[in-house]
Amino acid sequence: MIIIKIGGGNGINLKAIIKDLKNIDENYIIVHGANALRDEIATKLGYEKKIITSVKGYSSVFTDAEGIDIMMMTYSGLKNKRIVELCQLNGINAVGLTGLDGGIVEGQKTRGIRVKDGGKLKLIRDSSGKPKQINTKLIQLLIENDFVPVLTVPILDENRNAINSENDDIIALLQKYLEADKIVQLIEETGYLADKDNSDSVIKNISKAELKNLEEKAEGRMKRKIHALNKLFESTSPTVFIADGRIDTPLTNALNGGGTIIK
Amino acid sequence: MIIIKIGGGNGINLKAIIKDLKNIDENYIIVHGANALRDEIATKLGYEKKIITSVKGYSSVFTDAEGIDIMMMTYSGLKNKRIVELCQLNGINAVGLTGLDGGIVEGQKTRGIRVKDGGKLKLIRDSSGKPKQINTKLIQLLIENDFVPVLTVPILDENRNAINSENDDIIALLQKYLEADKIVQLIEETGYLADKDNSDSVIKNISKAELKNLEEKAEGRMKRKIHALNKLFESTSPTVFIADGRIDTPLTNALNGGGTIIK
Repeated sequence: MIIIKIGGGNGINLKAIIKDLKNIDENYIIVHGANALRDEIATKLGYEKKIITSVKGYSSVFTDAEGIDIMMMTYSGLKNKRIVELCQLNGINAVGLTGLDGGIVEGQKTRGIRVKDGGKLKLIRDSSGKPKQINTKLIQLLIENDFVPVLTVPILDENRNAINSENDDIIALLQKYLEADKIVQLIEETGYLADKDNSDSVIKNISKAELKNLEEKAEGRMKRKIHALNKLFESTSPTVFIADGRIDTPLTNALNGGGTIIK
Repeated sequence: MIIIKIGGGNGINLKAIIKDLKNIDENYIIVHGANALRDEIATKLGYEKKIITSVKGYSSVFTDAEGIDIMMMTYSGLKNKRIVELCQLNGINAVGLTGLDGGIVEGQKTRGIRVKDGGKLKLIRDSSGKPKQINTKLIQLLIENDFVPVLTVPILDENRNAINSENDDIIALLQKYLEADKIVQLIEETGYLADKDNSDSVIKNISKAELKNLEEKAEGRMKRKIHALNKLFESTSPTVFIADGRIDTPLTNALNGGGTIIK
């Protein structure tokens, strides 16, 4: 079983990726983002991204009800269905899903972020949280019957309301529940780079031990991404392929070691 | 088996409808619209509805690629997933789908509409068409495994591209393939009215024969709606309930004869 993660950047070559699916002999599930599309539509709709900063100094995006609306339009709607359409065009019987459908991904809403409002300390809760459990019934049923699940956000919180969540966290949980032995991450880069400004500096192989060191050295969003990778290896031993999602045969290239292999 | 059609108007009480699903003892599938939401978002995105008029004088909405984008955002995305969320909140394990997913609804693109462009006759093709076939495999699989399918547009054309289609035509085809004996249509009115300006003039019972007469007398969009109803009765004999989707218990009311019953 392979989990194929398709990044949500504008440079990702969706047509090439979906065409390349024919070369995959194993069962797979697709998980995709849509951040570039979400930002584009949000801007057109005049929706301003709200950034909140906790008293500890961490900044994060605040997802309100309208933010979930826009997520549903772009992730669950436009991007998900255009991927399903591309699959159907290529003879792949895809079924587009969110974490809500069939209760696939159940999570827990963040308890709140402490912020300073004027002089006062305030606890702010938004509509985001962590995935805690995968209900595999629907996914297994689809795969057993030759359908290809195409999954994206939102997910359910503990009260069964829609919340935002990180795809990396969802994939880590999926990997555990589905016992996937391979994870392919298709990104807008040639692989994991030694020098983030040099696309020729792809690190071909990374061991589990090296991943720990990389996390310590990394900064910002990349630190969180490597943290998610490290979590992936905590309880299981998959092989992770991080490779270019912009080229002609992104999946074949990734699985043949064209990018970075972590194991 | 019941097909429940939820209208896409702003007055429809989605919360009440979904809550009322608990009182349904049979298997069912939900088909929904989202026209009010689609128009609202299209306006916000600065997308102008294009109306074309054929040489014969018929006017229709022209659906281009951007029109399909907006349909995917509003029908397949926001409205579909908010309905799934409401279902999950009420303990109903819904799965949101379009005609693309699992190749459920296959149709045929309109061949073109003859229009006059300057002095010349031109054939214009847009991204819309008629549903021709239902692939029941996914729907049956979901229902057999206690999931509730929540279906909306777009559908597939003969080349497996996404196209727009009329919900009424999809429902007529679903009824045939699923052998549904009941169809509930929840609308923003008390039922089928004898006098379209008087909500107290609901016709309680309409026979198949009377339906033919009504089609002849009706005008505009209503004429097309009754035509779709007549088509429904061509090969099968379901009971159709047309009732108020704005009240507290819309489904119970409809099935108890609170609106119009056609059989």
